[in-house]
Amino acid sequence: MIARLTEEERAAALARLPLWTAVADPDGLSRRFTFADFNAAFGFMTRVAILAEKADHHPEWSNVYNRVDIVLTTHDAGGLSQRDVDLAQAIDALIE
Amino acid sequence: MIARLTEEERAAALARLPLWTAVADPDGLSRRFTFADFNAAFGFMTRVAILAEKADHHPEWSNVYNRVDIVLTTHDAGGLSQRDVDLAQAIDALIE
Repeated sequence: MIARLTEEERAAALARLPLWTAVADPDGLSRRFTFADFNAAFGFMTRVAILAEKADHHPEWSNVYNRVDIVLTTHDAGGLSQRDVDLAQAIDALIE
Repeated sequence: MIARLTEEERAAALARLPLWTAVADPDGLSRRFTFADFNAAFGFMTRVAILAEKADHHPEWSNVYNRVDIVLTTHDAGGLSQRDVDLAQAIDALIE
């Protein structure tokens, strides 16, 4: 069972993820990504899907043409956990 | 410029797409797909992405683990058009 982050851990995580926003429902992290076109957006999604499957931790996400909105939350923890932070960092690393 | 379907065309299209639901905002067609797991869901999304790119007509869609929710609408037409009907039929054909 993975634990929800404490307030202190959450603040530290958000400080390390300046491009992500804390969201309340579900409790987690959110980021919007914008690309040149659908091809680029879906290519990014495919890379994230492979990361997510490897980590056995999956995003809640949506796509409209060149835009991808990702929310990371951990249902087993009832909110934000270290798994979300790790996946957010791995996603950021894809597009740095 | 692609035209929005007339009421008569819309009724005929919905009759041919019994697994899709008319939605109002945006005006279009919606269907939920459920798979065994994320791998199967994202595999389906990849097939849809290729169809969509080929048709130059893209879904508004979201995914949570094994579930994919698709909305088809045509921004250039201000609502439901023949392009949405064609893409819905092509998506249905993928999983028949």
